Order: sequence, then C-alpha cells, then structure tokens
Amino acid sequence: MASAISMIQAGFSCGGALSSFTARPRRMVVVRAEAINPDIKKDEAKVVDSVVVTELSKPLTAYCRCWRSGTFPLCDGSHVKHNKATGDNVGPLLLKKQ
Amino acid sequence: MASAISMIQAGFSCGGALSSFTARPRRMVVVRAEAINPDIKKDEAKVVDSVVVTELSKPLTAYCRCWRSGTFPLCDGSHVKHNKATGDNVGPLLLKKQ
Ligand code: FES
Ligand code: FES
Repeated sequence: MASAISMIQAGFSCGGALSSFTARPRRMVVVRAEAINPDIKKDEAKVVDSVVVTELSKPLTAYCRCWRSGTFPLCDGSHVKHNKATGDNVGPLLLKKQ
Repeated sequence: MASAISMIQAGFSCGGALSSFTARPRRMVVVRAEAINPDIKKDEAKVVDSVVVTELSKPLTAYCRCWRSGTFPLCDGSHVKHNKATGDNVGPLLLKKQ
C-alpha cells in the first residue's frame, strides 16, 4: 500500500518472547519496503502499458517511470518535482523514431 | 534520499509553539515523500534512457518502471517481488514492433 511505512529500526535490543532465544542484547534492522505508485490505476493488480512503436507520431516521446505524471503513461515533467522533494534521480524513458 | 522516512502521523494534538494558534487540540498529518529508486545509477542527477525504436530486435520488449530490475532499463520481472512485498501495482512498459 502507498501508506506502508518505510522504517529503519536499529540499535536497540529485542524484548518479549523473542528474547528467550538468547540472553544477549541484540540489534534489529527492519526495512519495510514502500510502494512507488501512490495513485495511478490502483484498482488494477498491475499497471502495464503497451506502445506499438510504428504508431508513434512524434520523433521523440517521453514515457513516465516516476509514477507521478498527470498524463501517465506519458511523462509530463512531474519527475522534476518528485526528485526535488525526495532527493531521487528518476527520469523518463525516451522513445525515438530514429 | 532513498532513506527518507515516509510517515503518517495522525490522531494527536500539536504542542509547543504551534499550539498558540488555537486552544483546541488538533490533528496533524505529515507525509514525507520517498525516493522510488533505491540503487540505479545514483551517481547520475537524473536517469533518462533512450530507445531508438527502429533498432528493437524482438517483437516485444519490456522496459522497467519499478526501478528494481537487475537489467535496467529492461524489465527482468523484479516488479513481481516489489509488488508482493509492498502491495504496489507497478509493471513495465511494453514496446511492440507492431
Ligand atoms: S513525469 Fe514521470 S518520468 Fe517524467
Ligand atoms: S523489473 Fe521493473 S517493471 Fe519489471
């Protein structure tokens, strides 16, 4: 889910039932993965788009890979805002007719 | 950064300086945006790939949009594991020669 929380927990020992496995304090790292598509076609199990390349009209067409475009599957430049807000470095796939 | 923490904080009132705006308890929602590319070409400011469509060799080629592929920019099926781990619904862009 887009609302899943990505977190790193480190530097503390486990308590409760788990501690019965060992008497020594332990360190735990939990990294919960995060969804990358917050909004696009969330009713679909998997968003796959197809391009018949012979039907491309323009010499160059940019396709979104940041899942933030208002014109998805096309790129509308929204990756710029996403990169700025998060420190990310994502960009589109460019399809060139030649 | 990929390590930025995405979090939702809700259901508690604000204290400190902010509370001077109102005497009523308030709810706060904080959503910090998260990078979607953990590893690919992080030395580059923006990862943009180009495909000259006339040079596609196969009838169908899948390009990655999940940023988890070991053969990026091509899709290697890693979106399946990502979707399962996170509840996400991302998939590739399919380029078809016709
Ligand atoms: S808007 Fe998503 S890559 Fe450009
Ligand atoms: S591996 Fe990324 S979309 Fe398939």
